[in-house]
Amino acid sequence: MMAYPVWVDGKENGCLDPADRGLAYGDGLFETLRVEAGRVVFLDLHLARLQAGARALDIPLDSHLLLQELLRFLTNCPATCIAKIIVTRGSGGRGYLYSADLSPSIILSAHPLSAYPESFQAEGIDAVLCTSRLALQPRLAGHKHLNRLEQVLLRQELAGTSADEGLVCDMQGRVVEGVFNNVFMVRLGELLTPRIEAAGIRGVFREAVIQESAAAGAPVREDELYPDDFLAADEVFFCNSVNGVWPVKSLAGRHWAPGTVTRYWQDYWRKQLG
Amino acid sequence: MMAYPVWVDGKENGCLDPADRGLAYGDGLFETLRVEAGRVVFLDLHLARLQAGARALDIPLDSHLLLQELLRFLTNCPATCIAKIIVTRGSGGRGYLYSADLSPSIILSAHPLSAYPESFQAEGIDAVLCTSRLALQPRLAGHKHLNRLEQVLLRQELAGTSADEGLVCDMQGRVVEGVFNNVFMVRLGELLTPRIEAAGIRGVFREAVIQESAAAGAPVREDELYPDDFLAADEVFFCNSVNGVWPVKSLAGRHWAPGTVTRYWQDYWRKQLG
Repeated sequence: MMAYPVWVDGKENGCLDPADRGLAYGDGLFETLRVEAGRVVFLDLHLARLQAGARALDIPLDSHLLLQELLRFLTNCPATCIAKIIVTRGSGGRGYLYSADLSPSIILSAHPLSAYPESFQAEGIDAVLCTSRLALQPRLAGHKHLNRLEQVLLRQELAGTSADEGLVCDMQGRVVEGVFNNVFMVRLGELLTPRIEAAGIRGVFREAVIQESAAAGAPVREDELYPDDFLAADEVFFCNSVNGVWPVKSLAGRHWAPGTVTRYWQDYWRKQLG
Repeated sequence: MMAYPVWVDGKENGCLDPADRGLAYGDGLFETLRVEAGRVVFLDLHLARLQAGARALDIPLDSHLLLQELLRFLTNCPATCIAKIIVTRGSGGRGYLYSADLSPSIILSAHPLSAYPESFQAEGIDAVLCTSRLALQPRLAGHKHLNRLEQVLLRQELAGTSADEGLVCDMQGRVVEGVFNNVFMVRLGELLTPRIEAAGIRGVFREAVIQESAAAGAPVREDELYPDDFLAADEVFFCNSVNGVWPVKSLAGRHWAPGTVTRYWQDYWRKQLG
């Protein structure tokens, strides 16, 4: 039995061409999916983001084909798992220039759910303010591309602390996101999250919260936010589409109990899991 | 006969693990070497840069082992070729966090020399000022890491022009480098090149020019330089360790004939080829 399979271009245990541009330049994109009882949570939003990234990078991704291959892949995976999609521009050449006729590579892999303590959801997490900062690059911001050295550095910085997540700023000191989550705050009943314009990843759960809130007539305010705004907030939470919503219970000496807005989005998250 | 071999971790036609962090996050480094009559040009400088990058990324690279494998690899390559080294942090995990016990992956590949017109060296090239800009990230600047989406975008921008190279600025409008070269200018007999502190790659030929000039008592000035400085220069040239020195004969309406300083460094380059 193949518990957690890996497919490269449709082939089980396939081999990645060492000339793939995904390796050479990080020339590609990825998505990390929560699969629950055989169903991908937020599938449409993941595919939409992947498609937007492919457009931005000029990668001729056939979404329909990808979806078919993903569904076929999932029938070979544990019903509840994490599935990762990597799409690269494909293989070829030695220089930065790509030719338009390259065929994208698709790497699918399944993984066990991450083993975070139950208390992360129930009571919340301890957060720090990271010192490493994100560079400003509007051409790439928002997309979940494969150039992730900044996140590798940040994750390592976080591992050197006793905190569970970190608030990450851009080079101008504005909060962008967490190390592996997006971040929201509540101020006087209003839900706010940093704009993702020059740095950061437009997370799928972040997008779901924005769409749901807009539909409910109480839109999220995407704003320029600084660490002090978070310290002065009534509630702060991290979230992503794989692990759900983590209330922040401490940040730089400030303490919170999980608030009602945070609990609301935790309920929303649980409903999506089905 | 294997004209241009590819080795993955010492194995000919080896397979790259799809879980390699080089693919997942661009978590690694590369070097592109000019091999001339079986000898690597600027070998020491390439290895020093690779080692510096590995230190910056905390990748436990064994330089001695790498060198031995490279030399063994080259005995299987055409005597004159381009050899590429990719070093990644290795394989493992699904998240950004790495464990210290990962073993780096080494991918070696050989390629034919690039076929640029002889006129690029003899008469010079046409250059443009690129509109895409480089993000500022001092933690990564200088190193030849695998996060190269900015260069992919820039190379594509250049392909849409009739120019052969482009002057690339950072987000603050300072010139950093070319799309696939470093850049120098001459002003009143003095040789200048942009500082590589927050963006760009510390090229091996750039480093050779800096070291040679210092040894000769006429140090290169690494300075904050803007496009107007280049337009006002007496000479401008691009260079890298693989293709040598290309005089700029035109840039944004300004025209030059190759100058004596440019010719000097072209001679220097030819001597290195042996």
